[in-house]
Amino acid sequence: MERNSPRQEGGILLSHAHHLERIEETLKEQFSAHEPLVNEVTSHILCSGGKRIRPLLTVISGIMCGSEQEPLYRLSAVPEYLHAASLLHDDVVDEGQMRRGKLPAYKIWGNRAAILAGDYLYAKAIELAASFGIPAIASTIADTVAYMAEGEILQMQHATVVEYTVEMYTKVIFRKTAALLGASCKIGGLLGGEEKGADALWEYGTNLGMAFQIVDDLLDLTADEEELGKAIGTDVAEGKRTLPLLMAQDRADSGDAAWLTRLLERRRIPGPEELARLKELLEATGALADTKAKAVDYGEKAVEALAPLPDCEEKAFLADLVQFVITRRK
Amino acid sequence: MERNSPRQEGGILLSHAHHLERIEETLKEQFSAHEPLVNEVTSHILCSGGKRIRPLLTVISGIMCGSEQEPLYRLSAVPEYLHAASLLHDDVVDEGQMRRGKLPAYKIWGNRAAILAGDYLYAKAIELAASFGIPAIASTIADTVAYMAEGEILQMQHATVVEYTVEMYTKVIFRKTAALLGASCKIGGLLGGEEKGADALWEYGTNLGMAFQIVDDLLDLTADEEELGKAIGTDVAEGKRTLPLLMAQDRADSGDAAWLTRLLERRRIPGPEELARLKELLEATGALADTKAKAVDYGEKAVEALAPLPDCEEKAFLADLVQFVITRRK
Repeated sequence: MERNSPRQEGGILLSHAHHLERIEETLKEQFSAHEPLVNEVTSHILCSGGKRIRPLLTVISGIMCGSEQEPLYRLSAVPEYLHAASLLHDDVVDEGQMRRGKLPAYKIWGNRAAILAGDYLYAKAIELAASFGIPAIASTIADTVAYMAEGEILQMQHATVVEYTVEMYTKVIFRKTAALLGASCKIGGLLGGEEKGADALWEYGTNLGMAFQIVDDLLDLTADEEELGKAIGTDVAEGKRTLPLLMAQDRADSGDAAWLTRLLERRRIPGPEELARLKELLEATGALADTKAKAVDYGEKAVEALAPLPDCEEKAFLADLVQFVITRRK
Repeated sequence: MERNSPRQEGGILLSHAHHLERIEETLKEQFSAHEPLVNEVTSHILCSGGKRIRPLLTVISGIMCGSEQEPLYRLSAVPEYLHAASLLHDDVVDEGQMRRGKLPAYKIWGNRAAILAGDYLYAKAIELAASFGIPAIASTIADTVAYMAEGEILQMQHATVVEYTVEMYTKVIFRKTAALLGASCKIGGLLGGEEKGADALWEYGTNLGMAFQIVDDLLDLTADEEELGKAIGTDVAEGKRTLPLLMAQDRADSGDAAWLTRLLERRRIPGPEELARLKELLEATGALADTKAKAVDYGEKAVEALAPLPDCEEKAFLADLVQFVITRRK
């Protein structure tokens, strides 16, 4: 994986620093009205260094489809709320240890507050989406919340069993991750009143989301721990069969395959020697390269989906973002 | 509290047996499409002897406002889904012991499945509400989900502290219970296209809901355990200061008030002798009678709210339902 210099990484987001500032302001304005405890819990998750990719997608997509900017900033909080809500519940469900370099909310305030604050953020996102009075925005967000819950449930039921397949993995990550990125783009387009543009942006966003999640699953095995802000191998510790692990297991000889199964069933963070053997296995079987290639494929599909949209600065940014997502190191 | 004969109790619901049958069918149809584990968990909560008061309110309200019946049955699943979702999360959060005479879902399938199935049901409810393409229905349901989450959070933060007031109690139960009953009625009216009727029905439903919750809080202290299907005194065990307890504490002499505080802080189901002393205190201070009177007040407001609606069989049923809710024994 290529290394992004800090300048490159900052570069792509800084090119839209004025949007990001307005997004931060809007998020702060909106959640300052909540109950004190909700504020505390939601601030913890909302203000912990997220990249704001989802709201930025809404804003950029909306501008491309002719929407005014002020209502777009308000709308852009919707996907960020949904994202934060899902992180709150995921951490309770997965017993996550670290999130963006901080303790997860449930470890500080307890399951009770994390579940309720998650419910509250889901509700506020839906309320905000419905407040625009555009049925297609409300139903896109409603569908997305359903996809996300379905993805979590499918993952819980299947992702830790030996019979898990690449097909099932694809279904899970589409629901868990890609649908929300697709919706982030689509609702911007819908606010601009461009139904066809909105559909193209949904295609873009879902493919970007697939690439994003596949890279995430790779980073869980290959990133620098300090740079990533959480332990390497947490998916392994949760017994989750992500794409690189599925490919490696499929292609390994019976000895290595059995070792990998034991590693996944043990439910512990792998030690340094195990991680080294795992990486070697991923390289030797070609699982690492082919997983990366799969992410690149989805990235290409994302860029192709933009074809019907007129050429403009925003479209160029969306294409650059694909590169950023694929080459990111954290 | 007057005793309902089984005939009376069955009577009011049986008068709408044909609606209840269609409601059951629609609920079954809709959730048979879900993932197997979601089906299991949701069936457990959806098919455990709930009275279906919420969907029935939607159907009756819709008919009063001129809606066709087929889409009404579909819409009526929305409040039942929200109710079931909130029960799933409440039980995780409150560590509930029994629900409608059965073990709660989280005790059978674990926190993970209960949280995710709850998220899924919220999502499906919102998706279904948005599918009618009527913005006011989508936003009523979105507001309701926000109210419910807010109510849970307020309760978590405040209901167990000594400074809890009747005013705060009122705010909590409006959000936790009354808003959903109001919304159940209102969305029926909105589907019928009668905005003014829908507003009157919201007033009716929220006041009915306030009466319903106050009676619920009374039953937790005074019901017959077998009839109720769960332990008496669970609110006391959770340290929740419900209206009868707030009134009793306010009016008791310092010795009894201190005893009550200790009882609420101990977080255990009260024993038979403690329950007897508690009932005596509730009677002696007039807290029991005044709580009942408060429920009757809200019931009267509910009936008054129906005034703008034309007289019809459905309106008479809604008035009867107020009596049923106030005099119920479980």
